[in-house]
Amino acid sequence: MELKSLVNSFIVLLFLFFVVGIQNSVQGRLLSSVLKPHRNDAPAYARWLVSQNSWGVLNTISSDLGGAPFGNVVSFSDGLPNEGSGVPYFYLTTLDPTASNALKDQRSSLTISEYPLGTCGKRDPENPVCAKITLTGKVRCKLKYIHLVVLDNKSEEAKLAKSNLFSKHPEMKGWPKDHNFRFFKLEIEDIFMINWFGGPKPLTVEEYLHYKQNNLAFVQSDTI
Amino acid sequence: MELKSLVNSFIVLLFLFFVVGIQNSVQGRLLSSVLKPHRNDAPAYARWLVSQNSWGVLNTISSDLGGAPFGNVVSFSDGLPNEGSGVPYFYLTTLDPTASNALKDQRSSLTISEYPLGTCGKRDPENPVCAKITLTGKVRCKLKYIHLVVLDNKSEEAKLAKSNLFSKHPEMKGWPKDHNFRFFKLEIEDIFMINWFGGPKPLTVEEYLHYKQNNLAFVQSDTI
Repeated sequence: MELKSLVNSFIVLLFLFFVVGIQNSVQGRLLSSVLKPHRNDAPAYARWLVSQNSWGVLNTISSDLGGAPFGNVVSFSDGLPNEGSGVPYFYLTTLDPTASNALKDQRSSLTISEYPLGTCGKRDPENPVCAKITLTGKVRCKLKYIHLVVLDNKSEEAKLAKSNLFSKHPEMKGWPKDHNFRFFKLEIEDIFMINWFGGPKPLTVEEYLHYKQNNLAFVQSDTI
Repeated sequence: MELKSLVNSFIVLLFLFFVVGIQNSVQGRLLSSVLKPHRNDAPAYARWLVSQNSWGVLNTISSDLGGAPFGNVVSFSDGLPNEGSGVPYFYLTTLDPTASNALKDQRSSLTISEYPLGTCGKRDPENPVCAKITLTGKVRCKLKYIHLVVLDNKSEEAKLAKSNLFSKHPEMKGWPKDHNFRFFKLEIEDIFMINWFGGPKPLTVEEYLHYKQNNLAFVQSDTI
């Protein structure tokens, strides 16, 4: 009977770990088990943060709102976790103001938080130890999806954007064709990242883009 | 022994629900058990979304980045869940670019997603059924915290901002005094909310601000 008692407990454990697993899979938590880089390795940390997240806030200038900065929740992908290029791609419809804003004024930024990944421990989302990154640059629309220009129609990058996005966001494959979704990319011109005390980490676009993600990363115990 | 077996199972259950509880408390999930309003009740839904979230992306115009929209992860509070005013308050330091941007140009927006709350089921963060809201307006700094003006020093709203923020973000009480943190508020001038198919919900600032949160809210089964 003692054994039976243990078996019961084990079944309950399995069930609840399954429930926790389901929660994690739908909350935008860590997309893979790739460990967190050390905070002092800025390029590694930035690439990890972008690669592990599936969504962020894309900010554009809204002419309809007197030139106010307009943030919008979007899904993005630079590729699968630990295989990404660091370049965020988007699948946006001009039925949404962000895409139409970007076609009028390319100035934009993408802001991502570590908080929803669940790797900030109990820290406040604004605590500098809970990392945040803002990639500022220009949103460039893949012309192929506006004018069917032959040159763009053969664009390898358009295929890459589609592959990166649909692999991380499989639901996108089924989004309505008549909504005029287009592939966008953010051409990064400036990187603002805080992942510890002491202000933003010095990080150039070159250091960020040229970082090889297959470098060994490890968890820093003092951020958990 | 059968009873003992059940007791064991119950203890394991308690332990794991505790673990799940801890996770929820640190992931920016639902801050209270207030049920989700119906999607067609736009003011209720918007107030629920703002009240349940503890963080978002605050966008300002960056003169340092050629006037680009600069999004930044911030904590905010309009009050405790189901007791909020709908007006988001912030506790920002001018060591961070967002506060200094806002002092130069008040145009700004706060963007919040339902996704990290865990109430979008398995939907993609960009799926319109997973709600998103952008409050656009002006960021006004509580002058008290810049010039110690007597009038502002007695401001009831400054006390309210502090109370709203510190109750939802207790960690803020201990943030370094020499970092020159100041209380900010967003004066809402426009509301953009998508919480279902068919484009943004019509919602005026008045409807949003005058909504009484103690109205009965209920979960819509088709969004889970």
